[in-house]
Amino acid sequence: MVTPIDPTSAGFLLAENRSMPMHVGGLQLFKKPEGAGRNYVRDMFEQMRQEDEIAPLFLKRPYRSVRTAGQYVWKPDEQFDIEHHVRHSALPKPGRVRELLELCSRLHGTRLARERPLWEAHIIEGLRDGRVAMYTKTHHALVDGVSAMRLLASVLSTDPDKRNMPAPWGVRPTARSSRELERAETSLADVPVQALRTALGITAEAAGMPGALVKTLSKGLRNETSALSLYAPRTIFNQSITGSRRFAAQDWPVERLREIGKATGTTINDVVMAMCSGAVRTYLTELDALPEAPLVAMVPVGLNAKQSQVASAEGGNAVGAVMVQLATDLADPARRLATIHRSMKDGKEALSSMTPMQILAMSAIGQAPAILTPLLRMQGIVRPPYNLIISNVPGPRTTHYWNGAQLLGTYPLSIPINGMALNITCTSYDGNMAFGLTGCRRTVPHLQRLLTHLDDELGHLEKAAGL
Amino acid sequence: MVTPIDPTSAGFLLAENRSMPMHVGGLQLFKKPEGAGRNYVRDMFEQMRQEDEIAPLFLKRPYRSVRTAGQYVWKPDEQFDIEHHVRHSALPKPGRVRELLELCSRLHGTRLARERPLWEAHIIEGLRDGRVAMYTKTHHALVDGVSAMRLLASVLSTDPDKRNMPAPWGVRPTARSSRELERAETSLADVPVQALRTALGITAEAAGMPGALVKTLSKGLRNETSALSLYAPRTIFNQSITGSRRFAAQDWPVERLREIGKATGTTINDVVMAMCSGAVRTYLTELDALPEAPLVAMVPVGLNAKQSQVASAEGGNAVGAVMVQLATDLADPARRLATIHRSMKDGKEALSSMTPMQILAMSAIGQAPAILTPLLRMQGIVRPPYNLIISNVPGPRTTHYWNGAQLLGTYPLSIPINGMALNITCTSYDGNMAFGLTGCRRTVPHLQRLLTHLDDELGHLEKAAGL
Repeated sequence: MVTPIDPTSAGFLLAENRSMPMHVGGLQLFKKPEGAGRNYVRDMFEQMRQEDEIAPLFLKRPYRSVRTAGQYVWKPDEQFDIEHHVRHSALPKPGRVRELLELCSRLHGTRLARERPLWEAHIIEGLRDGRVAMYTKTHHALVDGVSAMRLLASVLSTDPDKRNMPAPWGVRPTARSSRELERAETSLADVPVQALRTALGITAEAAGMPGALVKTLSKGLRNETSALSLYAPRTIFNQSITGSRRFAAQDWPVERLREIGKATGTTINDVVMAMCSGAVRTYLTELDALPEAPLVAMVPVGLNAKQSQVASAEGGNAVGAVMVQLATDLADPARRLATIHRSMKDGKEALSSMTPMQILAMSAIGQAPAILTPLLRMQGIVRPPYNLIISNVPGPRTTHYWNGAQLLGTYPLSIPINGMALNITCTSYDGNMAFGLTGCRRTVPHLQRLLTHLDDELGHLEKAAGL
Repeated sequence: MVTPIDPTSAGFLLAENRSMPMHVGGLQLFKKPEGAGRNYVRDMFEQMRQEDEIAPLFLKRPYRSVRTAGQYVWKPDEQFDIEHHVRHSALPKPGRVRELLELCSRLHGTRLARERPLWEAHIIEGLRDGRVAMYTKTHHALVDGVSAMRLLASVLSTDPDKRNMPAPWGVRPTARSSRELERAETSLADVPVQALRTALGITAEAAGMPGALVKTLSKGLRNETSALSLYAPRTIFNQSITGSRRFAAQDWPVERLREIGKATGTTINDVVMAMCSGAVRTYLTELDALPEAPLVAMVPVGLNAKQSQVASAEGGNAVGAVMVQLATDLADPARRLATIHRSMKDGKEALSSMTPMQILAMSAIGQAPAILTPLLRMQGIVRPPYNLIISNVPGPRTTHYWNGAQLLGTYPLSIPINGMALNITCTSYDGNMAFGLTGCRRTVPHLQRLLTHLDDELGHLEKAAGL
């Protein structure tokens, strides 16, 4: 049975090329339960592989032919082979985090084969500290980063003694989790595709993003709506990229960020931005590549149902995007934080005064920059009005387990695109804020240095806040 | 710069699909040199990755577009990324040969991405006995199994103290080895493509195998030339296959095979066939799937220059194919070996009385069964006149080293195709005969049992020979 692909998902398939794999990734670290035997990881893998029933999302593959008039449709994979999708891997010695990040970089830099369902999961052993890692990779045509995280969370439990829990690709027995899955199935984060289409008057199932959306966005940019009108200087991040990926990740206690926020009257999210700003500033300075004008980040923000008027059934989940001044021209961490805070506030206010149509157009940037960028270019807008994308997606606040294995940390791997070679995505979990940095290895050299800079910057901000 | 792809190589690209990846593989096992440090495998990997200059064969990717009139051409990969091609992997615990074969099965079951040069090499650590493994994968459009083996051999040395040796994909400084590489570059084992084309009067660069070749072959079959006219019964091997692969490999001392040959007046190759025959007989019997009529194997054989009249410059390298009665209807190992010996001899004699054109047509079966099979069907020949392919490729007889690491064994991974779900390829090296069994995991269940059966059969043959 063949089912249609919504145009945005099809857009991700069409926009993908060798330089721009369009999958999102996740790296999870688990602690083996007490008394775990020598074969613990193998058993965990076997259990994940022997999932009785696979959710339909993970069984379908994209397909197009003359009979589908060249349009992509979903088709069940008649030769579905779980061994291809769920893999047991190990790290080379000495099994440090470095080897893990190298493996994730390599896995993230390889495209998913279109002839099979668009996902992979790797259960990884060999970390010398005994932790177990899992790297998952799912095409953006199936889920976005937020949905992928929800999907993972939906199979976890706060109960360390719970067993017989399914894998994320298994079919969940409860109503709640099957709803969760449906949401993932519709893709496009939390803006229902149907609503998006209706709001924008799209009727044809055209491939890729519709022209009407681009026109709205382009008008928004020309009208100099404050959330959009910023000037983004050229940086090394804003070049064509290659398919080579480098991934780096680390987490810091949310409490440290909260304390800075408290002392300076800013939010945790502002502090996240300030850390990124300072780190990017140091990084570009070292490369003698810091532009005079401050960098601009595109930051997806949550909106409540009233603001967006198109929120999902559960409310408050629509996503808009704010252009944030990163104040990278300022050397002083305190002044930088204050500027970011103001810019963020301005942006959110501007956003709330936008029409639903404008907000949706903004959302679309976050959802599909790779599709919009070339279309914007055709509209005479040569480059997007921002230098990099920084997202901050809240996750579970309490300790979670999978069949007794404690989830220690979860790190997102995102999608660099042409003109946007670095993506920073943060997720919070169990008292920690994880930073996941995904970049083109050739365009963003020594990406891992940003981790040191992030750490230094956190210290600078604490000092500036008088902590 | 774009270069044309010869039609046979293009044929491999066109014939490839998700169920039939068209790459050949090789698994090598190395012994670390005395006094190797903890980082030995990493250093070996780094050295292989840091190859100064990559041979052109490994830098080109296939490309087709409207501008190439839909035909495949070779194009240099402008974004060549050695990190994608040369990988450092590790085995999960407990690191037995079983885990190694599982990894190789998985790697061999995944298609090479067309957007990049069509090869991969994995340096694998984590075998509990301390050996180091290397799995390489190269598309059949670049090299065939024999050339791949030669390519590997060309970078090895008999001198354990030699260092600074290049990787197989590196550029060799000596004239001899660069000639070796050119040979690999022309592909199609040792039948020069140009000669093949001329002999068959092919002028157009048609994609896939030419109709003229099929007509010759089809005529050969209908004429009941004895090398061709055997009746092959239907077996479970002769079904449509999936893309799942299982690989099993093991080696036995050549001396044991030689002793049997001596005692029975047969050749080592006959003994190899008899081992395969007995193993397949036991395997099919256990599955209650042994047909009454004996199975037929297609066995590529070397011909000397005079016989083939189209041999390569160095002579004696053209390849023909003989259909061998496997005598699987006989329970007695001695009688089976005798029948195989006679069938092999008949086949070779028939082959030597064929015209060069007929021999070339035969060769083509060995080279491109996946391309020929559908074409044969169009000619009204419903199934190929054999049940499985068994090749025996001689390798180096003496101990070889790569930068001080002793090559302990080398095992070939080949290409199962629709209607031919099991491939057995044997290679000899340093006194051992290695059997590499590559099959579709779903069509050939429990493939690894064949290893036990091979071992048992060798014992039976020894007993039958009075050893």
